Amino acid sequence: MRTAGAVIRLRGMYVLVLGFLLLAGGCATVRTDPLPSWNDGSVKQTIVGFVLKVTTPGTPDFVPAPERIATFDNDGTMWAEQPLYSQMFFVLDRVKTLAPQHPEWRTTEPFASVLKGDIKGALAGGDKALLGLVVATSTGITTAEYETLVSDWLATAKHPRFNQPYTAMVYQPMVELVAYLRANGFKTFIVSGGGVEFMRPWTEKAYGIPPEQVVGSSAKVQYEMRAGKPVLMQLPELGFIDDGPGKPVGINLHIGRRPIFAFGNSDGDLQMLQWTAAGAGARFMGIVHHTDAVREWAYDRDSSIGRLDKALDEAQAKGWTVVDMKRDWGVVFAFEKK
Amino acid sequence: MRTAGAVIRLRGMYVLVLGFLLLAGGCATVRTDPLPSWNDGSVKQTIVGFVLKVTTPGTPDFVPAPERIATFDNDGTMWAEQPLYSQMFFVLDRVKTLAPQHPEWRTTEPFASVLKGDIKGALAGGDKALLGLVVATSTGITTAEYETLVSDWLATAKHPRFNQPYTAMVYQPMVELVAYLRANGFKTFIVSGGGVEFMRPWTEKAYGIPPEQVVGSSAKVQYEMRAGKPVLMQLPELGFIDDGPGKPVGINLHIGRRPIFAFGNSDGDLQMLQWTAAGAGARFMGIVHHTDAVREWAYDRDSSIGRLDKALDEAQAKGWTVVDMKRDWGVVFAFEKK
Repeated sequence: MRTAGAVIRLRGMYVLVLGFLLLAGGCATVRTDPLPSWNDGSVKQTIVGFVLKVTTPGTPDFVPAPERIATFDNDGTMWAEQPLYSQMFFVLDRVKTLAPQHPEWRTTEPFASVLKGDIKGALAGGDKALLGLVVATSTGITTAEYETLVSDWLATAKHPRFNQPYTAMVYQPMVELVAYLRANGFKTFIVSGGGVEFMRPWTEKAYGIPPEQVVGSSAKVQYEMRAGKPVLMQLPELGFIDDGPGKPVGINLHIGRRPIFAFGNSDGDLQMLQWTAAGAGARFMGIVHHTDAVREWAYDRDSSIGRLDKALDEAQAKGWTVVDMKRDWGVVFAFEKK
Repeated sequence: MRTAGAVIRLRGMYVLVLGFLLLAGGCATVRTDPLPSWNDGSVKQTIVGFVLKVTTPGTPDFVPAPERIATFDNDGTMWAEQPLYSQMFFVLDRVKTLAPQHPEWRTTEPFASVLKGDIKGALAGGDKALLGLVVATSTGITTAEYETLVSDWLATAKHPRFNQPYTAMVYQPMVELVAYLRANGFKTFIVSGGGVEFMRPWTEKAYGIPPEQVVGSSAKVQYEMRAGKPVLMQLPELGFIDDGPGKPVGINLHIGRRPIFAFGNSDGDLQMLQWTAAGAGARFMGIVHHTDAVREWAYDRDSSIGRLDKALDEAQAKGWTVVDMKRDWGVVFAFEKK
């Protein structure tokens, strides 16, 4: 240390200054916008301000990293849900694939309508009919078989309006947002009414969210031995519905910690947003409002898919952040940029 | 840079050598044993060899970090489970606390036996009686209220044999093992038959395992509004039993990825170990065999708590790693070292 000190004394101020410059150069990074697909405005400011607030040590709003839990609805929040949930397109294609093995479907609803291409007729039976389609096409097989079906379908199926793979229908601003949160020590989760087994094969690649951070609805699953090898069979029985009041229950069961940041887009997310808001300390509650019929779709209070009515009222009453897609997103889908 | 170079030239070899020494000192770490409480031998070698194998890039057994899932049973694997599961001691204390509000318990089994201090009598009713005790003492309250009860109890209750807090009854070698795995890019999970809400208040401090990586049994939970504030009520209804064949189901539901490393200690862990073993690529299956009546307990095939019978046979037949507690662990509990 004496030698090092002598060197510093010998060269004096000049050497010291050089040292500091090198140090600063090593730490500096080019300041890039972490949310380039978000237009400047109050929504972007609120998000960035919140993240800054909870990650600055020594301030009253600081939240330690392990408690920075962020939850995101999937359909309509992270990717498109019109004109039908992607999982329903998968189910409809499965009905067509399986039809030759089920001649009785030609005369049984809702299968008959699906096979005639009459989607409206198929949906006329309501949730019960939809659930019947899901059960008939997605149970009685193992979880591994189901995963292969989903992955194979995603590799070839195309969205009817945009002629893009369904995994290209993810919202670029939301992909940037989850990455930005993770870069700031957040743990990001999907909390969706969609099937957990339908989402897990692709969320890591699409959102950087691994399977263990995906919460969703599920069928009952049973452990069985098949030719000496264990398998998990998806039973034709409802396990858990991760929607509406089920979302805080699913969050509690899977995460065990209350989110400090939550994003949804429909009344099915209201309880998740309420549960997030009711915690102590700084909170962020966000809603994607679909206002862009040109680049995506425009719908809210009257839509049968992704209805946003009560949650929009509560957001306005309580000052939650409402994203106006048309105003706040410079880009909706990454494929627009090509 | 010219100035810095001149400094080096001025002082010559001596300054250069000092520079390198400082650099080496900044990066070098003393090679410490990551598993100091494990005695040298084949078990420790197998663990370290497995970790080295799956974390060395470019080898056939390499596993990318996101797929390095490790699951651990809790009772009897991570902490002591004799003479009774810790959660049962909590339940018995809750019965005594609540007894004044339930005069009928003085004449109703299994409550009457508990209140007389006759634990054997209370357990005579089998699983159904035990479940009755759990339901009567742990439901009809919110998850937040339950968490407070557990935390308050753990702060004062002492283990009957060792007179230590229950959270001091964790196995030091296993605490070292989960930390060692995490240092090598593994994600460590608890997968226990115990109540998930009973474990989450303390696993982060005891094991470094956060709430979202704890899988366990649970009661049904319901979202309710109480004076305008949302709460989660624990209902007197069984939700999920994360034991035996329920463990692979719980792993699938919560993690969505098959573990490559699993540790248990009883027949309740057999299916988790089978499920882990049945995956492709390198696998580690471990069993803690309780063989040390002096420092802990010695029990296996005939124990009503933590019975190890079929899983021991399968471990021997399939070459899984069986820890002989007496032989393989230099320390069992951290408090021994004081």
